[in-house]
Amino acid sequence: MSTAFLTDRYELTMLAASLADGTAHRPSVFELFSRRLSGGRRFGVVAGTGRLMTLLREFHFGDDELRYLRDNGIVDADALRYLEKYRFTGSIRGYREGELYFPGSPILTVEGTFADAVVLETLALSVLNHDSAVATAASRMSIAAGERPLAEMGSRRAAERSAVAAARAAYIAGFSATSNLEAGREWGIPTMGTAAHSWTLLHDSEEDAFRAQVASLGTDTTLLVDTYDIGVGVETAVRVAGTELGGVRIDSGDLPIVAAEVRAQLDELGALNTRITVTSDLDEYAIAALAASPVDSYGVGTSVVTGSGYPTASMVYKLVARQGADGGWVSVAKASSDKASTGGRKAAFRSLEDGVAVAETVAVSDGFEAVDVPSEHPGSRPLQVTFVEAGEIDTAHEGVTGTAAARAHHLRVREELPVRALALSKSDPAIPTVFVDAVA
Amino acid sequence: MSTAFLTDRYELTMLAASLADGTAHRPSVFELFSRRLSGGRRFGVVAGTGRLMTLLREFHFGDDELRYLRDNGIVDADALRYLEKYRFTGSIRGYREGELYFPGSPILTVEGTFADAVVLETLALSVLNHDSAVATAASRMSIAAGERPLAEMGSRRAAERSAVAAARAAYIAGFSATSNLEAGREWGIPTMGTAAHSWTLLHDSEEDAFRAQVASLGTDTTLLVDTYDIGVGVETAVRVAGTELGGVRIDSGDLPIVAAEVRAQLDELGALNTRITVTSDLDEYAIAALAASPVDSYGVGTSVVTGSGYPTASMVYKLVARQGADGGWVSVAKASSDKASTGGRKAAFRSLEDGVAVAETVAVSDGFEAVDVPSEHPGSRPLQVTFVEAGEIDTAHEGVTGTAAARAHHLRVREELPVRALALSKSDPAIPTVFVDAVA
Repeated sequence: MSTAFLTDRYELTMLAASLADGTAHRPSVFELFSRRLSGGRRFGVVAGTGRLMTLLREFHFGDDELRYLRDNGIVDADALRYLEKYRFTGSIRGYREGELYFPGSPILTVEGTFADAVVLETLALSVLNHDSAVATAASRMSIAAGERPLAEMGSRRAAERSAVAAARAAYIAGFSATSNLEAGREWGIPTMGTAAHSWTLLHDSEEDAFRAQVASLGTDTTLLVDTYDIGVGVETAVRVAGTELGGVRIDSGDLPIVAAEVRAQLDELGALNTRITVTSDLDEYAIAALAASPVDSYGVGTSVVTGSGYPTASMVYKLVARQGADGGWVSVAKASSDKASTGGRKAAFRSLEDGVAVAETVAVSDGFEAVDVPSEHPGSRPLQVTFVEAGEIDTAHEGVTGTAAARAHHLRVREELPVRALALSKSDPAIPTVFVDAVA
Repeated sequence: MSTAFLTDRYELTMLAASLADGTAHRPSVFELFSRRLSGGRRFGVVAGTGRLMTLLREFHFGDDELRYLRDNGIVDADALRYLEKYRFTGSIRGYREGELYFPGSPILTVEGTFADAVVLETLALSVLNHDSAVATAASRMSIAAGERPLAEMGSRRAAERSAVAAARAAYIAGFSATSNLEAGREWGIPTMGTAAHSWTLLHDSEEDAFRAQVASLGTDTTLLVDTYDIGVGVETAVRVAGTELGGVRIDSGDLPIVAAEVRAQLDELGALNTRITVTSDLDEYAIAALAASPVDSYGVGTSVVTGSGYPTASMVYKLVARQGADGGWVSVAKASSDKASTGGRKAAFRSLEDGVAVAETVAVSDGFEAVDVPSEHPGSRPLQVTFVEAGEIDTAHEGVTGTAAARAHHLRVREELPVRALALSKSDPAIPTVFVDAVA
């Protein structure tokens, strides 16, 4: 199925107008970046690039798309002829999935003719803004949870396809499993889940429900104990499953108090190894507040799939350089009022001292040529990799493999952050973004 | 493409366990409802049902789904055999799309065997929670905008498929157009859009950009005038397009001040009919604050697709009645702590006095039989319609026709609200929900 219509109409009207006046063919550099970190977060997490690559493979205009554009008078005949053959033939470089980003980080750089690159704007932003918002929130939850595993179970609080993307983004940022089956199939993420309250209510008694679940899923299953009275639920659970019961889940109540009571009750009943999972309206703050409670794992729903208060990142996609009428390169940027930005092609490096990040160094070039690592910080780690070269997608970033690699990369680069970056309170970015002149 | 994996794993583990103990075949009634209105909103707007019907058509387990379930040991062989033949054969009744809802409104009632109905939980919630959150925010914006048209242009701030659903939900709730081409094609929503800042930056001068746009899109186009200096931009726009220029768009700055300045400048230049569109970070409050400004139309992005602070509704899907071991009906509900709900099958009516809504009347039945309109309010309007009967989907609610009908329905029923419901500030629901005993 074509993904070319997952886009704003104005990308195509600009394309048509640029074909008419010849500017369509001007070599151009677009940059996807964010002017700020939403919500006073101390770092952002890039996610979505692997999905974008998969969607880019299907980005073409078929008969159905061309007919709609013609019948609705959206573009002229010249543009229809161009779109019929459209395939992205430019290059895309940028931050790896799982990488951290800061204000001004050149997260993606898309190069091609204007026509080549302009039509990818909406799709690239849709994917990166959503997935990065979820990954950023998820990473904070993962830091708050420490060694305790986190499961994503927010599918019901996100549109049905976003739910799959959100599960993937949360996994990249440190979650260990998801409830979403499509995310399991498509991206290789471990899936989890046993039963809802309806399971207990379906049965004539809670005991019947627990017996049937243990018969079907084994003693190691997790029983949901809060449909009626939690104390009675726990007692029934251990009576039915025995002291080797895998776990109990609590989905309501004042969790620090309830978790302590349930742990004491389980221990008293001899179910010393039975785990406690809590799942009621958790976010990074609630998880942090449970650090001292006897909880073994967390299930997070609404807050992770909605970015914990910030459901979209504030990334934009801007033309930063293009060829001029004289054939030379021109750095460009919107100058007006509150949305100014920095023109020019950029190369980015995480500057490290003793292995700790101290700056996001962005080397700005007036020209088109690639730029070297700035020499001031010999420990600098280059942040950009090539995703697409001359229209060819590097498959390393796609599918199950790309997703697992992104998760490993995230957990690795998070270790570089200074300690203050791990706090949950609102603050400035953990490291400053420093723009320097490129060394040609 | 199958939609059956857009679901939580536990729906299928419950199904498998219920097949094993025979409860899978118990006639059951699930209800989709919300315990509260998010964010102190005074009413909610139902959206998504038409999309859910379309997704339900593709809800089946094919070879690929069955293989994943088997290979990952998620369900046993009996369940695989059941799922292979699965088609929803029950019934779905509920609120029309575009209808208003309040705490406890029985928005959808899904009836069938437990196995039939339990597996639809995640998908139904994903669609309704997302689409209704967007529609509820959009309706408030539509009220704030009054007669001025509103365009949805938030695709870049929502995941790529949610963007299409959000455009549809906003249209149902009173928006008049979208930037999203797929929403235009799939749901018949008018699309709009002309050019971005990159269009101006691509050219050697703003004047070149405006000339090329007018040549391609005609004098009636809308020119984006804030890439450099707004005053210069407006002057150039009118010089290039003439006083019959269709419109100018302003995407930054202090809008009440800028809009007044631009209107004065346009009038002075003789462009008396040139419209002003504003598009910078608008939400319902910013729109309301512009009511006295000379603005002709609004474009809304981030805030509408993210539900203006509440990106998901708080709808849940609960078993409310089922057959017991003795063949009789049993009303059921979770009793524990903070998430209690009302069991039993329900019929809902908007109680009206002199055409103004005074209550959401919900008649609760202990049994399975349909219930009559409560007699107290002869002006009551029944709120539930049949979407699916014995597995057959009523096509009236799908596609372009269903979407247009939902929009008309919404605008009609919004007229029934008491005046206080139209205020934007946080408050209680505009009308109380009154539970009454059903008249058999």
